Formats: sequence, structure tokens, C-alpha cells
Amino acid sequence: MATAAEATAMRQAITLAARALGATSPNPVVGCVVLDAAGTVVGEGYHQRAGGPHAEVHALRAAGDRARGGTAVVTLEPCNHTGRTGPCAQALLDAGIARVVYAVPDPDLAATGGGQRLREGGVDVERGLLEDEARAGNIAWLTSVNSGRPYVTWKYAATLDGRIAAADRSSRWITSPESRADVHRLRAESDAVVVGAGTQRADDPHLAVRGIEGAVQPLRVVIDTNGTAVTATSRVLDDAAPTLVAVADDVTTELPDVVRLPRTGTGLAVPALLDALHRRGVRSVLLEGGPTLAGAFVAAGAVDRVVGYLAPVLLGAGPAALGEAGISTIADALRLDVTETVRIGPDLRITAVPAAPSSPKER
Amino acid sequence: MATAAEATAMRQAITLAARALGATSPNPVVGCVVLDAAGTVVGEGYHQRAGGPHAEVHALRAAGDRARGGTAVVTLEPCNHTGRTGPCAQALLDAGIARVVYAVPDPDLAATGGGQRLREGGVDVERGLLEDEARAGNIAWLTSVNSGRPYVTWKYAATLDGRIAAADRSSRWITSPESRADVHRLRAESDAVVVGAGTQRADDPHLAVRGIEGAVQPLRVVIDTNGTAVTATSRVLDDAAPTLVAVADDVTTELPDVVRLPRTGTGLAVPALLDALHRRGVRSVLLEGGPTLAGAFVAAGAVDRVVGYLAPVLLGAGPAALGEAGISTIADALRLDVTETVRIGPDLRITAVPAAPSSPKER
Ligand SMILES: NC(=O)c1ccc[n+]([C@@H]2O[C@H](COP(=O)([O-])OP(=O)(O)OC[C@H]3O[C@@H](n4cnc5c(N)ncnc54)[C@H](OP(=O)(O)O)[C@@H]3O)[C@@H](O)[C@H]2O)c1
Ligand SMILES: NC(=O)c1ccc[n+]([C@@H]2O[C@H](COP(=O)([O-])OP(=O)(O)OC[C@H]3O[C@@H](n4cnc5c(N)ncnc54)[C@H](OP(=O)(O)O)[C@@H]3O)[C@@H](O)[C@H]2O)c1
Repeated sequence: MATAAEATAMRQAITLAARALGATSPNPVVGCVVLDAAGTVVGEGYHQRAGGPHAEVHALRAAGDRARGGTAVVTLEPCNHTGRTGPCAQALLDAGIARVVYAVPDPDLAATGGGQRLREGGVDVERGLLEDEARAGNIAWLTSVNSGRPYVTWKYAATLDGRIAAADRSSRWITSPESRADVHRLRAESDAVVVGAGTQRADDPHLAVRGIEGAVQPLRVVIDTNGTAVTATSRVLDDAAPTLVAVADDVTTELPDVVRLPRTGTGLAVPALLDALHRRGVRSVLLEGGPTLAGAFVAAGAVDRVVGYLAPVLLGAGPAALGEAGISTIADALRLDVTETVRIGPDLRITAVPAAPSSPKER
Repeated sequence: MATAAEATAMRQAITLAARALGATSPNPVVGCVVLDAAGTVVGEGYHQRAGGPHAEVHALRAAGDRARGGTAVVTLEPCNHTGRTGPCAQALLDAGIARVVYAVPDPDLAATGGGQRLREGGVDVERGLLEDEARAGNIAWLTSVNSGRPYVTWKYAATLDGRIAAADRSSRWITSPESRADVHRLRAESDAVVVGAGTQRADDPHLAVRGIEGAVQPLRVVIDTNGTAVTATSRVLDDAAPTLVAVADDVTTELPDVVRLPRTGTGLAVPALLDALHRRGVRSVLLEGGPTLAGAFVAAGAVDRVVGYLAPVLLGAGPAALGEAGISTIADALRLDVTETVRIGPDLRITAVPAAPSSPKER
């Protein structure tokens, strides 16, 4: 049984881990708190950047000698493989840690076995403390390890009647400055931000993170089947962040960084796109639109989370937030569970995830 | 200054008043609590039905002799006119009440003057205690007194992407049983429930209140320009509740209760409809759709409150919640303020009211 001090430490470790969301891919976010034998916090750390030290190493360094005989509380099972940094299990043994409490077992085959190695080294190991919370904090990475593709968050901003623009396509100020700032936070937490050729042509978006100090810029991705929407003067080609343009494999283009993908009926194949991004180390994608591309993602079953910013505005005309997704009758609707509703300035932010497969039939 | 006991009594009076929402038109809802000279509650009452005794009379009867020298706490200024019941100001004087605390001054010209009559009778009168809360509880009646038309609540049920049905028009189970039950509560609180010919044809709706004990049935109203959507076998013509069919003034029909109105481009004139309902004593209207008629109400500036039930469902196709409302550009959008967001089963209920006219410019 974990102690109250260990539970408090785990909560802190989860909070620490979250600081690096969007900065550690292809690695998970991890937080670690070291307690001395009396249960006092003597070291804290989190994995800050891919290639940088793991959370345990940061925390052990901070603790120094006081780690000896103490407990390491970690959000994820300590690794047992020698990658860019040495195995954390060994580092914990070397530091003389007597007990390790971790929340989530490492699902990554190459990394697994840290718990066992610690046990073999005589350490008292406990798993599962606050596992659900820790899992939620690492959901993008865990999902991508399990599914072999990035975790996709579809973000949209719409009126109460589900419009993303007025009939004349004007859309300025549908949502508030507060909501737009919040989207920058979502971008900062994501490895890549994706838009379609329609949005590229209509908005010439910038897609980089602004206003968040220390944010790691996401990879900006434009899905431009024929290589005609992104031009030399497009804002996504500035040096604020890296940019990748996805084009069909038969297209000739002079753009610097392109990925070539097979065509489908509506443009480029969504699974092939996600596979290409995954190979580049992208573990989380923020799909910023527009409705046509979002429809294709929904149709491909490739939306893991929906974040809708609803402005208290009525239009009665104009394009809908979600376009054709291959759903023609109510029984085939994509059913979600709302996980959060928050006021953001005058707007509402609704977060939802696909419902467990059995629930639509049960209702 | 009102005492703490008086504030508590006013809260209770507001709660009592709300019990009769939908049952008192063309009168307001009113609650009253009588305290004796020591501040103890000795009588409570509310106006239950148009034609029945006023709240003060109920509360004074319950208090009996203990009202003498006591305080009457009332949500609305006591009336001073002799209608179907005598003036309440006189009843309070006759009962020997020493002090009257009311929340909202009576805006109805025929009824005003109760406060002054009481003062002239030597009673200590205070107004304005919890006025905002009491006003909110009587908003339909107060609005209708000020505007000369019923207070209109537009209710809709839609998916997260703003659809009221799938592409094939199937819509069963978009929202949950909990949301549908909540709509019956809205109906019970309304004097009339209104739908258009499109909904009448598509759904043959019943529109009466089910599952709420003691509910006063609303007037069911179908806007059927050519008198062709409602037929002898329509469910709205059963005897569960009264029904009014609005038709154009040039239409011949054998329907029992019709109101004839002038035609406009899209059907019948919304202001004329509201005027006709107001003349029949209707103070609150629940507009239940569909999108075409709702668009006409928005275009006419005749929506005072929006209640949206959002189901966590995505469709990507199908009719939108709100149809053409004469808004073609974002600057002309109808801006609202969200007043409440509540989970109803798996759904979200969002309540919003038109924003104060100046706010869109300020944003
Ligand atoms: N409010 C919001 O949240 C929000 C967010 C984003 C955009 N928007 C608005 O949305 C509008 C643009 O919408 P949109 O739907 O035209 O743009 P979009 O979804 O960004 O782009 C659609 C285009 O993407 C390309 N594409 C490539 N592969 C595809 C596939 N598998 N499936 C579907 N499309 C694929 C196609 O163009 P090619 O064949 O040329 O490649 C397609 O026409 C703009 O007005 C923008 O302002 C609003
Ligand atoms: N999810 C929801 O909340 C909800 C609620 C209600 C309905 N619905 C769905 O909505 C669909 C019907 O939608 P709808 O838009 O066709 O029906 P609607 O809005 O109920 O009816 C529109 C019709 O009302 C008549 N009308 C009379 N005066 C009008 C005026 N001033 N402006 C506009 N219309 C006027 C017109 O027909 P005439 O010229 O023949 O009179 C018009 O075609 C159905 O599928 C129904 O299930 C959904």
C-alpha cells in the first residue's frame, strides 16, 4: 500500500510531467518525486525534452545523497533500456533507492522490464498508484504506442448553431480572444498541427504557437494534394516553426519539406498521412480544420478527442463545423462522451472522446 | 434595511412563485411569506392559477391572527386594483400587517399603486429586496408587459456539430431520455408551444406535457400557412391540451380553432402571430421548431432566450439547427450571453439570452 505522502508525491509528479506536453516526442511525458526514508520530498524532476535526461535522473540529481534508502515516485515505469540516456532502473539502483512506486506500466516493448530489474536489485516495487490520472496525462503517447499512429485531437470553433463562418465566409471574431489564446496552448501541447488545402487557401494561417513562453513549436502540416495551395509566400513557410507539406505521390513541387502520399477519393489517404507523421516521431496531432478534412478524419476513425469552442452566437447560414464523414443515418453517428465543459471568456469549450463501442446500442 | 429573516423569507417566496410557472397567465407568478412580529414564518402562499386567490391572500389565510403586527414578504408589489379578486394592498391592511417588503415594482399600469396605498395606510414599505432574482423568476411576464408580446424561448436539440437530423432525416435518439423529459418541464412552464408546418408534417408531434403531475397544459400552436399540414387525424387535435392552428387569412379550413394572419414572404408574419397569442393571454411561448420557423423568429428579433440541448454526437451531414435568419455576414450575427450550462444525462443544456446591444461592438 502506498502512503499518503506517496500519493501526494504522485500528484505532484503528474503535474510536473504535464509541463512538458508537446516537448518530449517521441518520448512520453514523465514526472518523478524522490522522498527520503522519512517521507520528505528531497528531489523533483520531469522529462523536459527528447534527448534530455529522464525524469528520474533529474530528481535523483536534485536529491543527491538523500535519495539513499528513500522512495522514487514516478508516473511511468522506469525504463530498462540504454537509449540516448542510460536505463533509469540502473540509475535508481545506483542511487540506493529502497522503494519505487510507479503509476503506469511502460507499454513500449523496447523499454519494458524496469520494474522487474528493480525488483531483482532488491528494490520494493509498487505499481498502479493513481494510474488513471497518470494515464490521462500521457494519453497521446500511450495511444500512439498502442495504435501505431499519432493521437488526434480535432479542434473547431463554431457558433451555437454549428457554423464556422457566415454565409459570405466572414468568420472574424466568432470566438473570443480567450478561446484563441487557449488554442495556442493546445498547439503547444501538440507535436503537429494539421490543416487542409481549403483552410490554407482561405486563411493563409500561420499555425505556430504565439504567446506561450518556452513552448516547443509544433510541426506545421498542410495537406495539399496537388501542391498548389502552399506557395512560396505562404506564412507557414516562415521560420517560426518547421513545416511539412503533404502532396500526392505524382506531384512535382519545389517546396522544401514534402511528404508524398497516395491519393484517395477526397484527397490524400488519412491513414497514410498519420503513418508518415508517426514515422517522423509525431505522437500527437492537433487537427485544426477545416470541415472537409475533419470529415475525412472522422470517416477514417482517426479522431481520438474533440475540442469544440462554441461561441454564443447564432448565424442561421454558413458552412458547418463538420463536413461529410460518410455518416448518412442516425444509427451510424459518431457517439462521444463529454469529458469536460469549461467557460473560456464568453465561449464554452467542450471536450469529448469517442464513447466506448457498446454504449450506442445500450442507449 | 431588510433583516436576514426577511431575506430568507424572500428566497422562499421566489421558490414558491416558481411552482406556478406556466399556470398563472395572463398573471405573473407571485410568492408571499408572512412573518410575525418576532420574525417567525406564520404563513406562506403563491398565486396558483389565473382567477384564483393572489399569493398574499393565501399567505394571510394561513397566518390568520398571527399576521397582526407582522411583515409580509412578497416577490412582486402587492396589487391595488379590484380584479377577479380584491386588491391585495387592502387585504394586507385589513390583516393588520405592519411592514411589507417586496422585490419587484409592479410594471402593470392597471395594478400599480399598491405600495403607495399601503404607505398611506401606515404600513412600513420597503422595495427591492432580492429584486434581480425575483425579476428572473418572472421574466416572461415582465417581458411581455414591457414589449406587448409573449416572451419567446427557442428550444432546439442538436448534435455537437449543429445538426438536428442525419442526412436521411433520421433523428431518433439524438438527445437522451433525460433531455426529452427536461423539455416537458419547459413545456409545462410555458403558456404555448409553437411548431411550424414542416415539423407538423415530418413528426406529427403531440406537444402536450407528459410525466409532470399537476402541470397546466400549454396551448399547442401549429403555424400552417395554407391549412394543409394539420389534418383531422393529427395528434395535436386530441383532447390532451387546447390547440390553435394559425393559417393565412385567405385560407378555407374546417379546423375547430384557427387564427387568421397575414402572409409574408416565408409564411405567416411572426409579429402578427405573437400579437394574436398575446391577445389570448399567452405570456410565454416555447418555440420548438423546426429550423425554418426558428430562423424566421430570429430574423424578426423575437427570440428572448435560447435553450439548446447538445448531444455529444457527430454527424457531418444533415439539416442545421437554425435556418435562414437574414444574417449574411458575421458582423450581423445574433450575439448571446450564456447564462447557464448544465449536464442533462449525457447531453449539455446551454441557456443563452441576447447580449446587451452594445457588447458586440465593444468586443
Ligand atoms: N472555425 C474553425 O475551427 C476552422 C478551422 C479551420 C478552417 N476553418 C475554415 O474552414 C474553411 C475551409 O474549409 P475546407 O473544408 O474547405 O478546408 P480544409 O478541410 O482545410 O481543406 C479541405 C481540402 O483538403 C484537401 N484534402 C487532402 N486530403 C483530403 C482528404 N483525405 N479528405 C478531405 N480533404 C482532403 C482537399 O483539397 P486538395 O484536393 O486541394 O488537397 C480538400 O478540398 C475556411 O473558411 C476556414 O476559415 C475554420
Ligand atoms: N431537433 C429539434 O430540436 C427539432 C425541433 C423541431 C423540428 N425538428 C425537425 O425539423 C424538421 C422540420 O423542419 P422545418 O424547418 O421544415 O419545419 P418548421 O420550421 O417547423 O416549419 C417550417 C414551415 O413553417 C411554415 N411557416 C409559416 N410561417 C412561417 C414563417 N414566417 N417563416 C418560416 N416558416 C413559416 C412554412 O410552411 P407553410 O408555408 O406550409 O406554412 C414553413 O415551411 C423535421 O425533420 C423535424 O423533425 C427538430
